[in-house]
Amino acid sequence: MDFSLTSELRELQDRTQSFIRDTIIPYERDPRRTAHGPDDALRHELIAHARAAGLLSPHVSRDMGGLDLTHLGRAVVFEAAGYSMLGPVAMNCAAPDEGNMHLMERIATPEQKERWLRHLAAGETRSCFCMTEPHPGAGADPSLLMTTAVKSGDEFIINGRKWLITGAEGAAFAIIMARTVVDGQDVGATMFLCDLPMPGFRCVRSLDTLDSSFTGGHGEIVLEDLRVPATDVLGSIGEGFRNAQVRLVPARLTHCMRWLGAARRAHDIALEHSRRRHAFGSPIISHEGVGFMLADNAIDMHTAQLAIRHAAWLLDQGERADLESSMTKVYVSEAVWRIVDRCVQVLGGLGITRDTEVERIFRDVRAFRIYDGPSEVHRWSIARKLGRVRT
Amino acid sequence: MDFSLTSELRELQDRTQSFIRDTIIPYERDPRRTAHGPDDALRHELIAHARAAGLLSPHVSRDMGGLDLTHLGRAVVFEAAGYSMLGPVAMNCAAPDEGNMHLMERIATPEQKERWLRHLAAGETRSCFCMTEPHPGAGADPSLLMTTAVKSGDEFIINGRKWLITGAEGAAFAIIMARTVVDGQDVGATMFLCDLPMPGFRCVRSLDTLDSSFTGGHGEIVLEDLRVPATDVLGSIGEGFRNAQVRLVPARLTHCMRWLGAARRAHDIALEHSRRRHAFGSPIISHEGVGFMLADNAIDMHTAQLAIRHAAWLLDQGERADLESSMTKVYVSEAVWRIVDRCVQVLGGLGITRDTEVERIFRDVRAFRIYDGPSEVHRWSIARKLGRVRT
Amino acid sequence: MDFSLTSELRELQDRTQSFIRDTIIPYERDPRRTAHGPDDALRHELIAHARAAGLLSPHVSRDMGGLDLTHLGRAVVFEAAGYSMLGPVAMNCAAPDEGNMHLMERIATPEQKERWLRHLAAGETRSCFCMTEPHPGAGADPSLLMTTAVKSGDEFIINGRKWLITGAEGAAFAIIMARTVVDGQDVGATMFLCDLPMPGFRCVRSLDTLDSSFTGGHGEIVLEDLRVPATDVLGSIGEGFRNAQVRLVPARLTHCMRWLGAARRAHDIALEHSRRRHAFGSPIISHEGVGFMLADNAIDMHTAQLAIRHAAWLLDQGERADLESSMTKVYVSEAVWRIVDRCVQVLGGLGITRDTEVERIFRDVRAFRIYDGPSEVHRWSIARKLGRVRT
Amino acid sequence: MDFSLTSELRELQDRTQSFIRDTIIPYERDPRRTAHGPDDALRHELIAHARAAGLLSPHVSRDMGGLDLTHLGRAVVFEAAGYSMLGPVAMNCAAPDEGNMHLMERIATPEQKERWLRHLAAGETRSCFCMTEPHPGAGADPSLLMTTAVKSGDEFIINGRKWLITGAEGAAFAIIMARTVVDGQDVGATMFLCDLPMPGFRCVRSLDTLDSSFTGGHGEIVLEDLRVPATDVLGSIGEGFRNAQVRLVPARLTHCMRWLGAARRAHDIALEHSRRRHAFGSPIISHEGVGFMLADNAIDMHTAQLAIRHAAWLLDQGERADLESSMTKVYVSEAVWRIVDRCVQVLGGLGITRDTEVERIFRDVRAFRIYDGPSEVHRWSIARKLGRVRT
Repeated sequence: MDFSLTSELRELQDRTQSFIRDTIIPYERDPRRTAHGPDDALRHELIAHARAAGLLSPHVSRDMGGLDLTHLGRAVVFEAAGYSMLGPVAMNCAAPDEGNMHLMERIATPEQKERWLRHLAAGETRSCFCMTEPHPGAGADPSLLMTTAVKSGDEFIINGRKWLITGAEGAAFAIIMARTVVDGQDVGATMFLCDLPMPGFRCVRSLDTLDSSFTGGHGEIVLEDLRVPATDVLGSIGEGFRNAQVRLVPARLTHCMRWLGAARRAHDIALEHSRRRHAFGSPIISHEGVGFMLADNAIDMHTAQLAIRHAAWLLDQGERADLESSMTKVYVSEAVWRIVDRCVQVLGGLGITRDTEVERIFRDVRAFRIYDGPSEVHRWSIARKLGRVRT
Repeated sequence: MDFSLTSELRELQDRTQSFIRDTIIPYERDPRRTAHGPDDALRHELIAHARAAGLLSPHVSRDMGGLDLTHLGRAVVFEAAGYSMLGPVAMNCAAPDEGNMHLMERIATPEQKERWLRHLAAGETRSCFCMTEPHPGAGADPSLLMTTAVKSGDEFIINGRKWLITGAEGAAFAIIMARTVVDGQDVGATMFLCDLPMPGFRCVRSLDTLDSSFTGGHGEIVLEDLRVPATDVLGSIGEGFRNAQVRLVPARLTHCMRWLGAARRAHDIALEHSRRRHAFGSPIISHEGVGFMLADNAIDMHTAQLAIRHAAWLLDQGERADLESSMTKVYVSEAVWRIVDRCVQVLGGLGITRDTEVERIFRDVRAFRIYDGPSEVHRWSIARKLGRVRT
Repeated sequence: MDFSLTSELRELQDRTQSFIRDTIIPYERDPRRTAHGPDDALRHELIAHARAAGLLSPHVSRDMGGLDLTHLGRAVVFEAAGYSMLGPVAMNCAAPDEGNMHLMERIATPEQKERWLRHLAAGETRSCFCMTEPHPGAGADPSLLMTTAVKSGDEFIINGRKWLITGAEGAAFAIIMARTVVDGQDVGATMFLCDLPMPGFRCVRSLDTLDSSFTGGHGEIVLEDLRVPATDVLGSIGEGFRNAQVRLVPARLTHCMRWLGAARRAHDIALEHSRRRHAFGSPIISHEGVGFMLADNAIDMHTAQLAIRHAAWLLDQGERADLESSMTKVYVSEAVWRIVDRCVQVLGGLGITRDTEVERIFRDVRAFRIYDGPSEVHRWSIARKLGRVRT
Repeated sequence: MDFSLTSELRELQDRTQSFIRDTIIPYERDPRRTAHGPDDALRHELIAHARAAGLLSPHVSRDMGGLDLTHLGRAVVFEAAGYSMLGPVAMNCAAPDEGNMHLMERIATPEQKERWLRHLAAGETRSCFCMTEPHPGAGADPSLLMTTAVKSGDEFIINGRKWLITGAEGAAFAIIMARTVVDGQDVGATMFLCDLPMPGFRCVRSLDTLDSSFTGGHGEIVLEDLRVPATDVLGSIGEGFRNAQVRLVPARLTHCMRWLGAARRAHDIALEHSRRRHAFGSPIISHEGVGFMLADNAIDMHTAQLAIRHAAWLLDQGERADLESSMTKVYVSEAVWRIVDRCVQVLGGLGITRDTEVERIFRDVRAFRIYDGPSEVHRWSIARKLGRVRT
């Protein structure tokens, strides 16, 4: 075993940390941050900085303009990027684009890559992933998928409703999951690529949400006789769920990486406050009620980082790491939540104001215990694996 | 022992519940709800409804237009009011006005009551309580109070800075806590009444905060040579902290009451969702991962209600109930938080959208573990009492 | 509402507290305490003290020699008795005898009462309740009951295996639950009374267990052609489960009462230690890491007591209190556990030695989260009720 | 980074696992297990097995008969050994001997090694470490050390009282920590080696404790004019606390390693039960209330293992790892506790009987949150480090 990072990776980590601290954090007070992430102008300005710093899209291949990072490399760099909520946007490694790039590099055709991925990887465009549906459709249980794509000649005609679609507003294209019907037969779920805007794809509203850092917010989409040519199927027909796994496991981990960075930021803000702020005769960190919270933060960050890096390393070894990524997702999403909640508490009244970045992190991170599988679904899935496998 | 409510109180509880359900909840979608509570027009409209229903200011004396409720009566009625975040506003029993009325009824002079309290109790005006100061001033540790009131002839000249002052924007008067200097001597803290607007009292900004339901938001105030006549001292000179206790203990409990109502609302929304929403073949409430959360909510609401009613009853017996109100504040603020957090989790993606009232309750209630004494300060105070008293 | 106790009940509480403190606690160092509770000689000596003090069997009717306490009265007195692990034994209100007396007072025939209950209530004899079976029989799920009672003439012939039968060793009689077969038909579960010792009822071993305070320990029983006359059916044939409810709900609560007393004892020991023991320059209670644990104990004891008294009061009003007793059982069993665990931690190394009574309480109370329905079964049952009832 | 084990280490892990499973676990039902660990005969029999298997004292140097394992190697092998509570005894790597060997290898003189260490490493003898004192002496706060060693000619005369001294009964020698006085001057704490039995060293009692697996139990020692030649100082005079650090940090980790193995054992027993035991129509693992507990176990074991291996690796790099070993000690001791507590709950009634090994593990592991620094002391120490270091 070896817990050290290569010198290349350490150098990249340092460089990312400096970039975030010196170039990105100053933007956090920029009024162009909206309730739905940075606006277009700010986004492009941030991306230009990352491009200049050689830090754009670090997860994609060099051919596509990235740094071709391994999963472990992402664990290190995305955590550093996440130290500012604007970092992943700047470095073009925020959700859902990052996961979409990962997916497309693996299963898109060369033509699809040139047409969609290249611009996405360059930070010129944004994308969205249209999977979740409003009640009673697909959510934590994807088998409830109700959107249909019916083959009609060389096209598919898609109808349905999607919901909580991150980044839909302003996306240049969508990946749409639909139950597919060919010759009157349900042949399973399929993913489709679709340029936006497009008749038949209507973003009927942008949801008001607790979080506020996802570019483009979360939209509700009506799909009405949306026509997609058969050539724009992503992967194979009927293989939608299987292919989604290619995206799902790593996407789950990259969320963990970025959020761990955000939690570390919150912790540093709370820690700094706890050293400066006096009450009852001494800095509040010297009161155990406060100090213990910060100690627990340190423990949570430490164990979360180990779990993330381990799971990333497993993926790099070619393992599926289903169980480990589920365990890591549950553990990190809950650890990050505990950390940020403690930071609010340490900051006291200041913690619930927007005067520090903690308030925003707090609002944004709550959803992580829900998306990419709620804790309950992962625990159920872990238990099912335990029930089956003989130890 | 008798855990039953009198028939009068049950009738009032029923009436309040109907009023909230039929008259107030429909306003929750009113666009006049802002990030800083209902706007003035909406507030007055809501108050008119409560007045018509005979439910205005139930905690003040009949002479002042209220229902003269005991503390136990408040426990029942405020919980019912809190079932909508607009309920306490409508019934004029929201913080900080409710606590200010309670305080003034007990320690204001007859002239002060006519001049300030009567209009406040009638819901015509709003007020604010200026105690908390920005770092390094008074917060969880009130002894750090830095604002000064210097006696000069028949006046006091007040200078300082206040922060997180709920309802300051738009208040018709303020109660201001200041360290008092008479003849060059620090004679302790004093509370002052002061009409608003007033030169020398400047609301320099309205803070952006996690919560969004307090009317007038939370302001930052600069006090610059604010002149207050000696007749406008509330209570006695130098008795500010002692008199603040008159407000503090019951105010702590009324927060518990209202928030318990809000938690119950969140629970009912989550429960209803859990019965309707299906996943993996059955309503999600039938999955233990969800059902157990709702069961824990039921337990938390039950024990929280018992603790609140017990502490209120103690106050009605003339007890100071210092220990019990501290224990209740810690317990209820944390129980309510657990409940609402679980509701978000049960609702899944829906829980982080503003499509249900749960998102707003979630944001608003977080601060309750901080204000009126953070959990840590109460635990410290409880431990100190345990350390002293021989069992 | 009225949270005060009647003066009669307060007097009885005082008297019980003095009795426990002055008469019973000194016996805690008696070598006749075994790994399976006090031995026979000690038990009779303790009972003689309670009889002399007029505190024997306070829950049974005056006709049977008790104090005819209401459920609320039991809540107060049993908590005081539980302050020593020997208290309920002395006062003849320990499990399982206390629950058996309660059951028999309600459903036994006058003849059965004279024959069995009178001696039991007088503390002359002990009894056991034979319900639980070893895997794969009845446990948390009683429907798995495998023991059978087959009608044969005027007798029932019982065969089966029982397990974890508290107090079996040395009991003068047993109540046995068995699936009943009459004329080849399964007519449901029935309870039978049976003198001990008796051929066909063999205690094959006494289990080694974590706990050590139940008189007679926990036995494993083989029932082999045990013959019980039809006159010794307790209640009616086929009504075993229904009648068991008569015992179950109150028995669940009386466990809560006694264990709360034990938790209070552990807390007082830890509190006293925390005032005397110095570390890092001051009494350890003044370190928040310790003080907060004691504060949380105070909160847990307070809320647990309220929940117990409320549920007891409901029973006194003639309510079934199914939901409330389930909530109370889960809450109290877990609160008591937290309390005692914290006490061990506060005591440090001392906490894991038998030098204080805390070690024994710790071992004994763990099982309470399991018996009378594990927390998981109660949460499931509460959720099911929530799922059904429209709010 | 590389999370894989070398093939040598994997082979050793496999070999240890087989040894424990095939050779040691069958001894768990041996009646020679007492309330104070295995008796002498059993201990020697177990050690003979480990010697034959080439697995004795794997942590000591090859010169002393061991396998010269790195800290990481210990992490792997000790966890495997801990899978049976008898494993570390058999392999001569149980506390306190293992830590004493580690310490002596580093700071003892060659003569001391031959005289004491060689026999200890061979499993022929046992030892004890006399540091902790009864109230008001040294415990969590070592500065309270009251035992004195006064220089008198070529000897030290030691007086004091020690308490909770693991393995004292039957030890062949002791390491004694005492405040040292030379020429009337307190020159700091010193460690002394002392053959046993010895006049002046009296084991006045063996404590009854919650745990039952430490060989020789925990003794209380009176030191009365105990004479130790100056040549038997271990390390240097006045360097006792500094030298104790050499023992402390690794000893803290080896406890984590062994207990993680024990927790894994408990988990496997509970898991197996949860697959076999049916209730409410299916194996109990399929009920989320049970399945989630087992899933949480899996997460806790995974993160605990990562933290242990990381800290061990740091030591292997020559780091002091103060912070990481504190974080790991807190995390693992609490994670292991959660795991074993859940196992008891999953097992239900069976969990509180000695019919499975879980009951014993449960009792034994509770103390780990206390010894080697209670969680509270470690959290305080972590917070102090956070407060100092600028991030």
